[in-house]
Amino acid sequence: MKQAVTYELLHECKQTGARRGIIHTPHGDIQTPVFMPVGTQATVKSLTPEELKHEVGAQIILSNTYHLYLRPGQDIVKEAGGLHKFMNWDRPILTDSGGYQVFSLGDLRTITEEGVEFKSHLDGSKHNFTPESVMKIEEDLGADIIMAFDECCPYPSTYEYTKDSMERTTRWAKRCKDAHKTIEKQSLFGIIQGGFYKDLREKSVKDLVEMDFPGYAIGGISVGEPKEEFLDILRFTAPLLPKEKPRYLMGVGTPDYLIEAAIAGIDMCDCVLPTRIARNGTAMTWNGKVVVRNATYERDWRPLDSECDCYTCRNYTRAYIRHLVKANEILGIKLLTIHNLNFLTKLMERVKIEIENDNLLTFKKEFYEKYGYIN
Amino acid sequence: MKQAVTYELLHECKQTGARRGIIHTPHGDIQTPVFMPVGTQATVKSLTPEELKHEVGAQIILSNTYHLYLRPGQDIVKEAGGLHKFMNWDRPILTDSGGYQVFSLGDLRTITEEGVEFKSHLDGSKHNFTPESVMKIEEDLGADIIMAFDECCPYPSTYEYTKDSMERTTRWAKRCKDAHKTIEKQSLFGIIQGGFYKDLREKSVKDLVEMDFPGYAIGGISVGEPKEEFLDILRFTAPLLPKEKPRYLMGVGTPDYLIEAAIAGIDMCDCVLPTRIARNGTAMTWNGKVVVRNATYERDWRPLDSECDCYTCRNYTRAYIRHLVKANEILGIKLLTIHNLNFLTKLMERVKIEIENDNLLTFKKEFYEKYGYIN
Repeated sequence: MKQAVTYELLHECKQTGARRGIIHTPHGDIQTPVFMPVGTQATVKSLTPEELKHEVGAQIILSNTYHLYLRPGQDIVKEAGGLHKFMNWDRPILTDSGGYQVFSLGDLRTITEEGVEFKSHLDGSKHNFTPESVMKIEEDLGADIIMAFDECCPYPSTYEYTKDSMERTTRWAKRCKDAHKTIEKQSLFGIIQGGFYKDLREKSVKDLVEMDFPGYAIGGISVGEPKEEFLDILRFTAPLLPKEKPRYLMGVGTPDYLIEAAIAGIDMCDCVLPTRIARNGTAMTWNGKVVVRNATYERDWRPLDSECDCYTCRNYTRAYIRHLVKANEILGIKLLTIHNLNFLTKLMERVKIEIENDNLLTFKKEFYEKYGYIN
Repeated sequence: MKQAVTYELLHECKQTGARRGIIHTPHGDIQTPVFMPVGTQATVKSLTPEELKHEVGAQIILSNTYHLYLRPGQDIVKEAGGLHKFMNWDRPILTDSGGYQVFSLGDLRTITEEGVEFKSHLDGSKHNFTPESVMKIEEDLGADIIMAFDECCPYPSTYEYTKDSMERTTRWAKRCKDAHKTIEKQSLFGIIQGGFYKDLREKSVKDLVEMDFPGYAIGGISVGEPKEEFLDILRFTAPLLPKEKPRYLMGVGTPDYLIEAAIAGIDMCDCVLPTRIARNGTAMTWNGKVVVRNATYERDWRPLDSECDCYTCRNYTRAYIRHLVKANEILGIKLLTIHNLNFLTKLMERVKIEIENDNLLTFKKEFYEKYGYIN
């Protein structure tokens, strides 16, 4: 059976490990490397699908199995004709497996070999996720790319805990693969775990690659560790993955991490960061962060970013956006969300060009020097 | 000196007292009768100016002197080049005088002949409004139509209180007129008060008409009284106003009240109701109210309103909008806001046609019978 999702490698950067490619999906092609905005509850907060397409330029969005399972329930989404129809979005969608959310519940969950028992953060009601039940939920949601059910270890975790967890994640990956039936409509990606231990990462890659998933994610980094450790594991793990499959780094959304991910050979990233900081009144710009809610912007009649031509920057001043943010007006959130997502779209456009020109490492140096994104 | 705002009477309905007209302003013409969406804090909550124009069809919006004075401050709006530039809206704007908001503060304000002392609802800081200071603020904000500083009596109020208040409002109207200097850029409308006492309404009209304002508002009704009392004072007062000036009924936004206002000869209405109930998950439709947050709509795959072709009704189901509302997603508020405001725009379009056809009374009966708006 033909996989719903396939990867086409267009060019490898001669300066770095970066790749220009295309991910083909049932809802259209995705030019990579790509940043995927997060629409946790079947909406990218504050934006219409038209704004996502025309003002942000989003090629694919991510939505959340844990949240949609709890509310409105995957049966309702299925009855609507799937997530695309439910939310009026006709481009590709990726659903995560809920693993990250469930494990973030801390005391509210218990892990067994079978799966995870957890209490809803909404009403405390009891639920179970197993690899099989998560596959069923993700099939009901109907995204183009669905993720295997995994455990994301907290940082730091002991070697022993990480090893047990990684091995269970591998067994769960196999169970997900066995349970997944809609291969021609949805492709199931495996998730590499193994924390900050290289031998565990190597083992995780080896076992999952043997299972022959149509794509691979790297989970369990960008979870609070120092940047050096993040880079160390990223640079070690990404090149181990098969060249002919798409590579997805989970939970990365700052400009410097996105550039590092591309350099390491990653094709897809997602993060709530650009939309979350928008709601707190912060803009990402080509000249660093602008915390527009600060008093210094009260009479600042410039756009958020003088190098940006997005809807927000064409039409609104920092002073007006600051007023909206201070007055808790929804439009402030929306204008910042459009800008931040558009900024990351443009950053990735630039990264694609630099890969094609075999110039990504040079661009990275310029970007860091000029714009001061050194975390 | 030529007034910034003038009224052109096109047609009087032969069935009712209704008028079709045009209000000419420095930012373009307004076809009347018109409903004006409210943008309290220099934004119609959740919408961009483009959505207001293209999805709602708003001809004019209202903004709020009290709120803008407190935040961001009229000096900042003035420095931006006025409210139009500050908020990126190039169609007409009306600012109310802050009278209604200040008097709504209850214990937080003290009235004297000079003006009103009040405490900010935001931080408790002390402020004064006088007719002269309000004129200065409204001139700084730069709306096309500005309102005189008045007192809106609570319902019910005694004859004596209402009489004193109305007479003070009249003296304040004179002081506003004397203080108002930007006649060619902004027109100052007087506000008729007098509560639910016809002789006081008559006196208020007489005194204000003598002052020759370029337009008149009726204030102090639609403040919680039974519909019969509302209609009684509306039908008594509106015809007393000069035919050659625009007539504005403050604080009306339900479909039945809007139709009654038009029938009584009113040209302009405003209300936060359509946007406020949108934020609570309620839609106005041609078949009555739809409280879309209710469980009954969980699997309702129809649009909010089967007779509507607005952006929301073309693209989204009740089930999806209910999900957004229940999940506290901003997009739910926006979709309901677009629909409710578009609904009132279409209702007023229809009212205009029925006036032109001398058929408004017949339409009212059909509307009430078919759609059940009997408050």
